[in-house]
Amino acid sequence: MNAPPPSKAAAGRFFEDFEVGQRLRHATPRTLREGDASLYGALYGTRFAVQSADTFARAIGYPRAPIDDLLAFHVVFGKSVPDVSLNAVANLGYAACRFLKALYPGDTLSATSEVIGLKENANRQSGVVYVRTQGFDQHGDVVIDYVRWVMVRKRDAAARAPAPSVPDLPGAVAPADLGRACPVIDAAAYDDALAGSPYRWGDYARGERIDHVDGVTVEEAEHQIATRLYQNVAKVHFNQFSEGQGRFGRRLIYGGHVISLARALSFNGLANAFHVAAINGGRHVAPLFAGDTLFAWSEILDAAALPGRADVGALRIRTIAAKNHPCADFPMREGEGYEPHVVLDLDYWAILPR
Amino acid sequence: MNAPPPSKAAAGRFFEDFEVGQRLRHATPRTLREGDASLYGALYGTRFAVQSADTFARAIGYPRAPIDDLLAFHVVFGKSVPDVSLNAVANLGYAACRFLKALYPGDTLSATSEVIGLKENANRQSGVVYVRTQGFDQHGDVVIDYVRWVMVRKRDAAARAPAPSVPDLPGAVAPADLGRACPVIDAAAYDDALAGSPYRWGDYARGERIDHVDGVTVEEAEHQIATRLYQNVAKVHFNQFSEGQGRFGRRLIYGGHVISLARALSFNGLANAFHVAAINGGRHVAPLFAGDTLFAWSEILDAAALPGRADVGALRIRTIAAKNHPCADFPMREGEGYEPHVVLDLDYWAILPR
Amino acid sequence: MNAPPPSKAAAGRFFEDFEVGQRLRHATPRTLREGDASLYGALYGTRFAVQSADTFARAIGYPRAPIDDLLAFHVVFGKSVPDVSLNAVANLGYAACRFLKALYPGDTLSATSEVIGLKENANRQSGVVYVRTQGFDQHGDVVIDYVRWVMVRKRDAAARAPAPSVPDLPGAVAPADLGRACPVIDAAAYDDALAGSPYRWGDYARGERIDHVDGVTVEEAEHQIATRLYQNVAKVHFNQFSEGQGRFGRRLIYGGHVISLARALSFNGLANAFHVAAINGGRHVAPLFAGDTLFAWSEILDAAALPGRADVGALRIRTIAAKNHPCADFPMREGEGYEPHVVLDLDYWAILPR
Repeated sequence: MNAPPPSKAAAGRFFEDFEVGQRLRHATPRTLREGDASLYGALYGTRFAVQSADTFARAIGYPRAPIDDLLAFHVVFGKSVPDVSLNAVANLGYAACRFLKALYPGDTLSATSEVIGLKENANRQSGVVYVRTQGFDQHGDVVIDYVRWVMVRKRDAAARAPAPSVPDLPGAVAPADLGRACPVIDAAAYDDALAGSPYRWGDYARGERIDHVDGVTVEEAEHQIATRLYQNVAKVHFNQFSEGQGRFGRRLIYGGHVISLARALSFNGLANAFHVAAINGGRHVAPLFAGDTLFAWSEILDAAALPGRADVGALRIRTIAAKNHPCADFPMREGEGYEPHVVLDLDYWAILPR
Repeated sequence: MNAPPPSKAAAGRFFEDFEVGQRLRHATPRTLREGDASLYGALYGTRFAVQSADTFARAIGYPRAPIDDLLAFHVVFGKSVPDVSLNAVANLGYAACRFLKALYPGDTLSATSEVIGLKENANRQSGVVYVRTQGFDQHGDVVIDYVRWVMVRKRDAAARAPAPSVPDLPGAVAPADLGRACPVIDAAAYDDALAGSPYRWGDYARGERIDHVDGVTVEEAEHQIATRLYQNVAKVHFNQFSEGQGRFGRRLIYGGHVISLARALSFNGLANAFHVAAINGGRHVAPLFAGDTLFAWSEILDAAALPGRADVGALRIRTIAAKNHPCADFPMREGEGYEPHVVLDLDYWAILPR
Repeated sequence: MNAPPPSKAAAGRFFEDFEVGQRLRHATPRTLREGDASLYGALYGTRFAVQSADTFARAIGYPRAPIDDLLAFHVVFGKSVPDVSLNAVANLGYAACRFLKALYPGDTLSATSEVIGLKENANRQSGVVYVRTQGFDQHGDVVIDYVRWVMVRKRDAAARAPAPSVPDLPGAVAPADLGRACPVIDAAAYDDALAGSPYRWGDYARGERIDHVDGVTVEEAEHQIATRLYQNVAKVHFNQFSEGQGRFGRRLIYGGHVISLARALSFNGLANAFHVAAINGGRHVAPLFAGDTLFAWSEILDAAALPGRADVGALRIRTIAAKNHPCADFPMREGEGYEPHVVLDLDYWAILPR
């Protein structure tokens, strides 16, 4: 045996450990199981018929019920945490996220990230790291591709920072880039009553607002179980001993948990929005804590036909989630910022049958 | 795109939205997965050998371990909630519930309900709705068939109510109607030691009382995860923000969660009662809340041979569950009503090997 | 029907109900499911690549991702509880635990125990019961074999105790007895980056200490769900009504839950220790309760080549877990006993690629 190195436990990268162009190959490939789908369902109560029933999925053209898009997203995201955001102060945003291939139980996900931007903060204590992360299946095909940026602590405030480099990010994924993960479906075989709503793609109007009505209270055990399901080990979600001494005095709920809760709430009003084709942008405006009750509302930002497809169309949806505040008044901005109960501002493209 | 309707989010039916003879086709078909069985086991700690092990199930004549009867019941029940009981004040009772076909991982459940009775309450604020709900598998076969009645709010107290109509319900399912979901088993191959008890059908006597001894404390995360597993979205179970301002100041635990907890506790004393063949009646006498500890005891009400079957017999069992009160004293009625800690009074037929 | 016996509910064995040489065949065979693996992952956040991904497992020589060793251990342990430790005061220790066969979803576990030692305590209120427990798969092969000892109450302090008999237990499993559950792997195909660490068997030195850095706070719902996943019904884990009046005023967390938490934390520093081949000894030094945050550190006690195998080697690892105390100072003993925050002292053999 060789002499031991100082420590074999990883402390995670600090801001000065990143450089633009750096490629990170993330650990822990993960086979998606039927059991993961069951747990995901039980954690969020999601009711989209395509993901819920093999019969419904097969009737419209899927080989079987696919894995929920956001479950796959969170698994890919989780892989990037030990290499990118173990020392993160905050997960600032997402952009240009595309879902490129339908996934099924038995598929295995792995992930890589490339550093595409770096910008030190003025206080020199931290900086923003931009990464483009790609998730792959067992065939090496890219299944999810997105950019996120995160504020990461510096190990040493005096360390020299690279020249600022901020990537140029699209405001939204273009309609021509949507739908690759959705097979051509038989829209006539899509059963609205079983799906839970008579409203198809053409029934929604730009500017239409939908209060999703219901609220769901989050427990510590729930968000911890969910976040571990994604093998996401960011310290802030699990360690009350250290977080109790920190900024909030509480464990912070993983932002992706909030997104999945809001998406599940949105079923009431968007039951036929069965597939998340892209996330144009997402901001975690404020933290959510155990004991808080989450509500959500959505606005239809745009509707787009998909080139060459008469079976489905895309809606660009902005979903706002608020804590401890029902959304009948559609809370969002107030003056310069968000109303104080807003926690999530998510802009995504969903696919609906035409 | 057309002009938007007022809101695409469903608010649920109120009492005046029901009429006798109305048929409701419920949303969200659901494929039962091995992962659902794992979660069900972990939520209740159920230990009946037939559902736990493929080897045991095959040895006696099942093709593999079947899905727990109550898991299937809760999934069917959950489908009816958005159409029947989203605005329910209370779930009042069940009757004539029969389990008609064994279910296995991979089977898909869907459900319909027919309104079979309506009766406005004297205060005109609400009324009782009686529905007969049927669960179907992917072949269109009826797998579960039951009646429940629920108190539903009126939208408008002044709304005219229909003439009262209360269905005639049987006191119990007849023995001749039991056992269709249980294949003919090889009772000689049924291993009592592996099953956990030497007591078979013939060893129980009418009037025999069994204290199930153990108690289990319920956590918010547990009942929420369970209720979402069933895709049951009744507001009272999940929304502390609104329930905190309501009748109890707390989230109410889904009554079916209580039934499954009591059934799991009953293993200690009824380990060979491996199949729930019918529910004759069930009453949620009082609410259960997180932090409460549930205990249970059972009385053998009757024993019945099944016509033409020498392999199994049925026991009619009354299981009483109480909160924060061990059941060594067999609590039940006191004067006109139930003792204050009683929460569940369940009357069912179970199948045991002869 | 015959006359009923006094009660069909089991109260569990007391100390005077055991005798050396007694063989106990435990109830409730259990088929391990993919869903159990999903739940196990979500409860602990385990990230060992072999158990996480079919692709990784196949690349090195497994037919698919195996079931986590400790999940199988807990399931076997759980079966022994109703027959051995329902009336236990404390689970005192484990020894000579060997993992003898890799397990996969679809395998069914059953278990037996033999009483191999008995020793009444001086106060005559209780005694120590030593059992050798074996877990079997559906082929009748022994898959897990271990000794544990547990302090069990006497029903009657005046009852005569047998002559003390304490088995001779090995300090550690011999290297020649390790590795039967690990197929010969292709160490060249083992991808260190995907596994999450460059450190293989030869890179660890005797005496090396690793702080696993992270901490995880435990919730009541989590340990209850885990313990029920194992069908372990020991009263102390579930019943706040009775435990609230007991020694600690709290529900006690199953010791195996603590072991699995510590093992998951140890990934950070021991990512390639993919298989638990044996547990030499384990002591639950102090109880863990919900709300506590668990930390862990490990010391490499020994390294051993396996006879005839060039693919893998074994590390003997001592993992200490502490509550509400980060382990950068490697807490363990202080004077005669353990430092007050230490809860677990585990000595095991892990397999790593060479």
